[in-house]
Amino acid sequence: MEWQNELTRLLKISYPIVQAPMLGVTTPAMVAAISNAGGLGSLPVGGLSPDQTISLIRQTKSLTSKPFAVNLFANQIPPVNPAQMEPMSHFLEKFCAKYHIEYTQPNLDSITLYSYQEQIAILLEEKIPVVSFTFGILTDDIIQELKEKETVLIGTATSLPEATLLEQKGINIIAAQGMEAGGHRGTFLDNSPLPLIGSFSLTPLLAENCKNPILAAGGIYDGKTIKAAFTLGAQGVQIGSAFIASNESAATTSYKQAIQNASVTDSVLTKTFSGRWARGIRNTFITEVENSNLPVPDYPWQITLTSAIRAFAQKQDNKEFNALWAGQSASKAQSKPAGEIFTHLIKEMEALP
Amino acid sequence: MEWQNELTRLLKISYPIVQAPMLGVTTPAMVAAISNAGGLGSLPVGGLSPDQTISLIRQTKSLTSKPFAVNLFANQIPPVNPAQMEPMSHFLEKFCAKYHIEYTQPNLDSITLYSYQEQIAILLEEKIPVVSFTFGILTDDIIQELKEKETVLIGTATSLPEATLLEQKGINIIAAQGMEAGGHRGTFLDNSPLPLIGSFSLTPLLAENCKNPILAAGGIYDGKTIKAAFTLGAQGVQIGSAFIASNESAATTSYKQAIQNASVTDSVLTKTFSGRWARGIRNTFITEVENSNLPVPDYPWQITLTSAIRAFAQKQDNKEFNALWAGQSASKAQSKPAGEIFTHLIKEMEALP
Repeated sequence: MEWQNELTRLLKISYPIVQAPMLGVTTPAMVAAISNAGGLGSLPVGGLSPDQTISLIRQTKSLTSKPFAVNLFANQIPPVNPAQMEPMSHFLEKFCAKYHIEYTQPNLDSITLYSYQEQIAILLEEKIPVVSFTFGILTDDIIQELKEKETVLIGTATSLPEATLLEQKGINIIAAQGMEAGGHRGTFLDNSPLPLIGSFSLTPLLAENCKNPILAAGGIYDGKTIKAAFTLGAQGVQIGSAFIASNESAATTSYKQAIQNASVTDSVLTKTFSGRWARGIRNTFITEVENSNLPVPDYPWQITLTSAIRAFAQKQDNKEFNALWAGQSASKAQSKPAGEIFTHLIKEMEALP
Repeated sequence: MEWQNELTRLLKISYPIVQAPMLGVTTPAMVAAISNAGGLGSLPVGGLSPDQTISLIRQTKSLTSKPFAVNLFANQIPPVNPAQMEPMSHFLEKFCAKYHIEYTQPNLDSITLYSYQEQIAILLEEKIPVVSFTFGILTDDIIQELKEKETVLIGTATSLPEATLLEQKGINIIAAQGMEAGGHRGTFLDNSPLPLIGSFSLTPLLAENCKNPILAAGGIYDGKTIKAAFTLGAQGVQIGSAFIASNESAATTSYKQAIQNASVTDSVLTKTFSGRWARGIRNTFITEVENSNLPVPDYPWQITLTSAIRAFAQKQDNKEFNALWAGQSASKAQSKPAGEIFTHLIKEMEALP
């Protein structure tokens, strides 16, 4: 079958399949495995320091000579809100004492938060061919700077107004994030209420109303779901959860098992881990923070408060205190090398009538 | 192309396309138009009196000799809860005074609520070939009685446990109601939290795990969405919103215009009209009942409290007080004869590569 289209030509890849950037799960080895197999790996560096960013990019480059994307969090950082931070921080201290979690309260005065703007010079220097982003839209200056270097830009939309704005700003490819998708919602315009549009409605809505190629995201895990996304008007698909249990994933064993064993009704949208809405599997942490009825500080402040808890949970391989991000079809994730999962997707798709 | 499959053979229809039952919107003329065009029309009679049920069935029969489905609400009726009814009723009285809506408070002692069990004898007598249902599952006795007369049964599921139970009970076809679907959620098992699974995840989940044919519902409006549902494993599709603006629809002009002009982000899930979760377009009624922060009495009690308001809104053609049920792709609804809309779907599907 003919895989080449406008999207593959823009991205200079063999198959229009993008591995979704999953911070905390995606490793340079996963990115390289997908790019080496002919797809587009995506290296998530959202919120990381310039040093970490360079290091991850260089590690990835040491494993592949194929194009890969680097993914940014294009959010603004709101001022800290002590009226929300103090009660939440106090609650988390008690929560950690209850469950014997080592917890050092972060010192708000000494926290360094990194903006994506500090990562742009690195991306330009490293000649990253594809830059994807979520949680917002890059500034006009940065878009121009990246485009002058012929960087292909992928923005994330959860509604038609977001897709339209991305297109107006010159973004080349729109990732249409259906409500089935795992992890953080990319919503950056009106989020009251949060747009929760199913892939089955969002993909054709954006494909019919946008000129640029659409990358469908949310609920895609095998040949038939890829084919259905193309039928709905997508030129490519972005697949995340199906790679969470792969050998190259940084997910802990208990996280991998949790998504493979979860029923889709265990999946919730929650702000409790980060301050932004995200889809994952309910656990003790989510339920107890919800039951506290405390307002959750805005992203990225809540994530700074919970990072020690997640680090502890990962070290202990305890799924009850870790963020188990997963899409609505995440139970289909397989414990195999990422490249093998990818190649199997291609074979399944080619075997379809 | 080959339209015949297990589902069309069971239902004795030419095309595996079912018009979704939409109480208050679907008319006998709409049902007949779809069945005459080779699909399956569905006549909604949920909660109606035996007399109304007979009358609607006879009207439909006078317009078509083809098979059509009759759709029941298979819910239990909970005892009235005065602690919820009284404050809500008082609030609605004030609401109606504010907006000059004629409102007669229903006398709870004299309200007659009809159960689906009173409609079964009529369906048997009228030899209805297909009975579909939602909000629950028919009793074992009724299932047996209907099956003895070779009635084909279609149940509605919003999760895998619901689909599995329907299949265990001998139901022939499972309507997989994705979260994109308009109108009432069919959820009848655990609804805390309410299962909100996108069609893109729900359709393949049920198709992979059920032996009986799956009818995909939610987000389907044209040839490519029908084809995508088949690719995901459905043997048929159920289409509602695309017929709301049809000539045969009982929807008011302002309702038809509202769904055609709505953005998908105007769509909300609300219990305010009926006491059951349903998807429709936000309006003044929904917002003010939400803002009252009053608990909403369970279905069907809330719907008895709001029926005078909806009747008034329909008479006045005022969309602010009417239930504007609509799915996430409802803006694609066209103002044409229902049979023409149906035939166009078939042509679009056949024209696809």
